[in-house]
Amino acid sequence: MPFVEYPSSRSEAAALDARDPIGRFRDGFLLPEGVIYLDGNSLGPPPRRVVERLEEVLLREWGGDLVRSWTCHDWIDLPERVAAAIAPLIGASADEVVVADSTSVNIFKLLSAALRLRSDRTVILSEAENFGTDLYVAQGLADLLGDRVSLRLVDRAQLAGALDDEVAVLMLTQVDFRTGLLHDMAAWTAAAHETGALVLWDLAHSAGALPVDLDGCGADLAVGCGYKYLNGGPGAPAFAFVARSHQQVLESPLWGWMGHETPFEFDTRYRPADGVARLKVGTPPILSLAALECGVAAIAEIGVDRLRTKSEELTDLFIGLIERECGVCGIEVVTPRERDRRGSQVSLRHPEGYAIVQALIAAGVIGDFRSPDILRFGFAPAYLRYVDVWDAATRLRDIMVEDRWERPEYRKMAKVT
Amino acid sequence: MPFVEYPSSRSEAAALDARDPIGRFRDGFLLPEGVIYLDGNSLGPPPRRVVERLEEVLLREWGGDLVRSWTCHDWIDLPERVAAAIAPLIGASADEVVVADSTSVNIFKLLSAALRLRSDRTVILSEAENFGTDLYVAQGLADLLGDRVSLRLVDRAQLAGALDDEVAVLMLTQVDFRTGLLHDMAAWTAAAHETGALVLWDLAHSAGALPVDLDGCGADLAVGCGYKYLNGGPGAPAFAFVARSHQQVLESPLWGWMGHETPFEFDTRYRPADGVARLKVGTPPILSLAALECGVAAIAEIGVDRLRTKSEELTDLFIGLIERECGVCGIEVVTPRERDRRGSQVSLRHPEGYAIVQALIAAGVIGDFRSPDILRFGFAPAYLRYVDVWDAATRLRDIMVEDRWERPEYRKMAKVT
Repeated sequence: MPFVEYPSSRSEAAALDARDPIGRFRDGFLLPEGVIYLDGNSLGPPPRRVVERLEEVLLREWGGDLVRSWTCHDWIDLPERVAAAIAPLIGASADEVVVADSTSVNIFKLLSAALRLRSDRTVILSEAENFGTDLYVAQGLADLLGDRVSLRLVDRAQLAGALDDEVAVLMLTQVDFRTGLLHDMAAWTAAAHETGALVLWDLAHSAGALPVDLDGCGADLAVGCGYKYLNGGPGAPAFAFVARSHQQVLESPLWGWMGHETPFEFDTRYRPADGVARLKVGTPPILSLAALECGVAAIAEIGVDRLRTKSEELTDLFIGLIERECGVCGIEVVTPRERDRRGSQVSLRHPEGYAIVQALIAAGVIGDFRSPDILRFGFAPAYLRYVDVWDAATRLRDIMVEDRWERPEYRKMAKVT
Repeated sequence: MPFVEYPSSRSEAAALDARDPIGRFRDGFLLPEGVIYLDGNSLGPPPRRVVERLEEVLLREWGGDLVRSWTCHDWIDLPERVAAAIAPLIGASADEVVVADSTSVNIFKLLSAALRLRSDRTVILSEAENFGTDLYVAQGLADLLGDRVSLRLVDRAQLAGALDDEVAVLMLTQVDFRTGLLHDMAAWTAAAHETGALVLWDLAHSAGALPVDLDGCGADLAVGCGYKYLNGGPGAPAFAFVARSHQQVLESPLWGWMGHETPFEFDTRYRPADGVARLKVGTPPILSLAALECGVAAIAEIGVDRLRTKSEELTDLFIGLIERECGVCGIEVVTPRERDRRGSQVSLRHPEGYAIVQALIAAGVIGDFRSPDILRFGFAPAYLRYVDVWDAATRLRDIMVEDRWERPEYRKMAKVT
């Protein structure tokens, strides 16, 4: 459902920017001149404050107070501070979130823990559409544990039917990385619980992009990514969520010193720390955590509700423009039209998607390509303007109308990230 | 065996600095004025070049080229570049080293892999003196795998006797974190191989501090830490080594997208990448890797052989001064006197070790305390001077002679890192 003031010209789009209540926050991000950045769902740009903060960590803390910074600058609790800042963005309490390791490693911890919480069951259920690493981690765990565990992988349409009493944990990514489809977290969580299964949500494409309500949905477990809509920097630390009710019996397979009850006593025996802290493993990466802290703060300052409202409008506008301008060029909109069924991205399909994305990048619009034929555009409302959407759609139309994507320099396959 | 020109005064120590062939490299590190930093074995200081490099990554790469930096600044291969720089420091080939995750997580991968390589055996053997996280990871893995695995933990003196044909992998830290004792890597590797076991070496306190010869010793597996003698920054990424002969059959339990043969095809099935690349899991942390790259470069430029020569002299000098000046104060030298039996640290023992370390810090000498009674001093020859050693020993003597450690402000227990 497009919003009432659907702009019919670039100047009308600019007028929307002029009265955008969160438009001023764009200045809080470093973005190169002349670029329309529709790939914040792959890597968010630097929040402006990260420059000063990293300099401080580097010169005053690391270089100035050296190892004493663990206490005098409270580095040791930095993971907890960042976790506490993420918590309200995902509908969790601070004591339900931990920041550590990568999304993949956190999936390993939580899948393993889920199987222990449902030790009479052996199946991890997921959809074939899920992101690669989620599936690989599950396969690796099943391979490690032998007969005790298997991954049941079905197409999305078969998911409900595959949710039976063998399933220990249903693993879903809330927003599909290819299509932008948004799963109904409350409904899937309830369906899993009805069969006695737990749910592990991957929030890679939802944290920082839209309001997530883990506690409100009764979710059990979740992981998420720091470098997309949270703007934490390339390869930023990831987070994990464990509902309070599961915490005291939670058994992570990765027992590291930072998850020990008393790390600095150097006991020979592992004793897990209270609550989610037991999910910490190695020494926290302070430079990366400091950057992530800035990214999370920039999003928290705007607020996920306001971000979501604008995101719905930006994606509505893009879908509307593409349908009007590019429909005849063989470009298909893959992302659901219903606002409550999509995340903060719009995906298009075209057999020459790779070349079209390259032509768009050359025209100053950065989106990305996902094999085999998906053109993917993230709309991060923290720094995108209505005119950016207008211009991106217009440039895409021009590329299609002029067959500009057919140029040989756009058709070479190259490494895509 | 003290070196010939054993200085008998501060000015003689200064004369050693004046003709130190690697003394000029001290300027390559950021160190606060007036501090003698004997804790580089816990956290190395920033290499000077890291300031400019991080600014470049932040502004020009992340902020300037955004997601395209994965290809146009070759972020995607940064783990390999850092691994190739670490390899010669540890006697390995570039294709035997991978940089990823934390030391703890890498221990998990390699212990699990070792158990698969020796699937007819069930025991992980280590010494009770080993570092906490090494033992915890092994315990967690044994807990996960149930009857298939157990950790056999013995005192150092019992280690040789405990190495029998049930042992799949012997896990040792080359330099003991408390005492600085240096294990004979060649001898232990040979002893393990004689019984059919593999060896996993933890190089946390040796990489960057002394020449390590993994390939020369026929070592199978190793892990190491980026933030100690490699000066990669707090919580820097860690590394892992797998001898070429084991690589093609190596099975890591952590199957992530970065360890996939073709990460960007998003197959639903995991296929491990060739060689050590399969040990990669999640998205590489670029800010941290860029810092680590600077730290490794600073050490490689000096060279581990020259570092070792100076380290032996610095530690000789400190031991000699402590024995002469502090022996009567009840301070005992714990670290072996023989150069080839110690790493780059000197550990002392005193029942009031905690308070003495606090008094030393107040006097500008930063060492650390390890429970229950160890005063630990790292001698990183890349930036320490002979006069630093002289001054540190002198100040420790003064604290002991004046009983200055008895002041109440030094005796409070606080969090120690």
